[in-house]
Amino acid sequence: MSEVRIRPRQVLILIIVFLVVLMMVHRNGKRTCQGPEYLQAMFVQGDTLPTIYAVTPTYPRAAQKAELTRLSHLFMLLPHLHWIIVEDTNATTPLVRNLLDRAGLEKRSTLLNIKTPSEFKLKGKDPNWIKPRGVEQRNLALAWLRSHVDVDRHSIVFFMDDDNSYSTELFAEMSKIERGRVGVWPVGLVGGLMVERPLLTEDGTKVTGFNAAWRPERPFPIDMAAFAISMDLFIRNPQATFSYEVQRGYQESEILRHLTTRDQLQPLANRCTDVLVWHTRTEKTKLAAEEALLKKGQRSDGGMEV
Amino acid sequence: MSEVRIRPRQVLILIIVFLVVLMMVHRNGKRTCQGPEYLQAMFVQGDTLPTIYAVTPTYPRAAQKAELTRLSHLFMLLPHLHWIIVEDTNATTPLVRNLLDRAGLEKRSTLLNIKTPSEFKLKGKDPNWIKPRGVEQRNLALAWLRSHVDVDRHSIVFFMDDDNSYSTELFAEMSKIERGRVGVWPVGLVGGLMVERPLLTEDGTKVTGFNAAWRPERPFPIDMAAFAISMDLFIRNPQATFSYEVQRGYQESEILRHLTTRDQLQPLANRCTDVLVWHTRTEKTKLAAEEALLKKGQRSDGGMEV
Repeated sequence: MSEVRIRPRQVLILIIVFLVVLMMVHRNGKRTCQGPEYLQAMFVQGDTLPTIYAVTPTYPRAAQKAELTRLSHLFMLLPHLHWIIVEDTNATTPLVRNLLDRAGLEKRSTLLNIKTPSEFKLKGKDPNWIKPRGVEQRNLALAWLRSHVDVDRHSIVFFMDDDNSYSTELFAEMSKIERGRVGVWPVGLVGGLMVERPLLTEDGTKVTGFNAAWRPERPFPIDMAAFAISMDLFIRNPQATFSYEVQRGYQESEILRHLTTRDQLQPLANRCTDVLVWHTRTEKTKLAAEEALLKKGQRSDGGMEV
Repeated sequence: MSEVRIRPRQVLILIIVFLVVLMMVHRNGKRTCQGPEYLQAMFVQGDTLPTIYAVTPTYPRAAQKAELTRLSHLFMLLPHLHWIIVEDTNATTPLVRNLLDRAGLEKRSTLLNIKTPSEFKLKGKDPNWIKPRGVEQRNLALAWLRSHVDVDRHSIVFFMDDDNSYSTELFAEMSKIERGRVGVWPVGLVGGLMVERPLLTEDGTKVTGFNAAWRPERPFPIDMAAFAISMDLFIRNPQATFSYEVQRGYQESEILRHLTTRDQLQPLANRCTDVLVWHTRTEKTKLAAEEALLKKGQRSDGGMEV
């Protein structure tokens, strides 16, 4: 016998089985191939995760590209992140545009610019805390978010400095923030301490205080990297912005006082015991030899982007 | 008619078509889903790329986990990297072991340890250049490589500090290093310059010199991040090691003099015009508040790993 008899219904079943297997293989393929399991799981969940809008104020300096390059790796690894970079310049720069393009982030980034008014700009040897930084830039990002984000879809806003160190796990935690809430977690190497962290009730569900050593009397004595905010809170509270009119160290309290109370904060990162972000700072670049070259009308980086 | 007649040969052809489509979909799925195209291409090439052994000496300090976390993102993104971490400790530490596990790098990393002899260790306020760093650790990694790597397969060795900034593109360039050669490229923000770089012949194929401002008389006046080495050179030159017996700034020249000449160097990174790595340095962590706590017998990070 050289023939097999098959009914049309059997052919249909075969085709369906084929398609189901194809979909399963394809879905399984949609993941970072080398990352840890929770990252792979995030790829499989894909569109069901809330988008996290990471707002990064940045300004021109020798190490700018190095810092943004390090940060871009997080965006390559995490599919539900959208990067809002706000340059402190009169126009967006080729350096940042090139960086986003080369990282393949054209569709998952927004590049804005606004110059800090000169009266608020740091001068010469001013220590970096004397005037508030990033106020103008973060407010522009908030204005963009309020007019561009689809509020019917849950999304999250995080203020991400360009020289801190973030783990991929931090963003997995951030995805757990509920609508209408602000998530909080510990931050390493900040405020003179190894770790600044929220203190919780015994059942781990509510924040009762903070362990900050520096200005603990602030309403929210935490760093900008210690929290992220459900986007709907910004829509419901249009008055929530950053301000030049507040004391040093009060920017976090200034934005949060419009949006939440201590009691409503959502503790994350394993009941605030995992440190998933660190307030690292990069040394100012030493360029003595470059300055000597410039005096002779020469430079080391002619025609190159560093 | 309610039946279709199919020959066994046709069934066989159908199965083969099914399997081919399955393989194509699966292969296509094997890539980072969000990275730029050259990264996706590297995933598809997979095993045909030479393994890059990145050797990272590291030592306990407040920012250690933050720095290693940033670096781990490169390993998650680049499938052909193998991380050799060598701790300057008497035993490997849970901090580094946990970090490798949580990054999903158990199978693509090797954790070693060796303590720098105390007579070579930096003391108190010594500037960090007064004594050579990482000599013991890099030599242990070389010994491990010489006894564990399959020499019949082409592979590459790169010395990767734990606080510099690297782009993913650097590793794509490094993959082009030929057997028996040392690849070189520019490094940003080093030696007091915006960029230290090799100077090339007009056709871009050979190195004629370097633009270093600091000790340009060195045989190879370049930073540790400026080169990577085909593994076979280490096998053919077993005498090539790092040494305490050389002047400040001569470690790079010390290892390279055994392995290559200027003339044999392989210029990479778009004829040495792209800057893909930066010699950033992280500020020493300020822990005044923590020290005050410790005097009272308290600490901010009890039971936590920072």
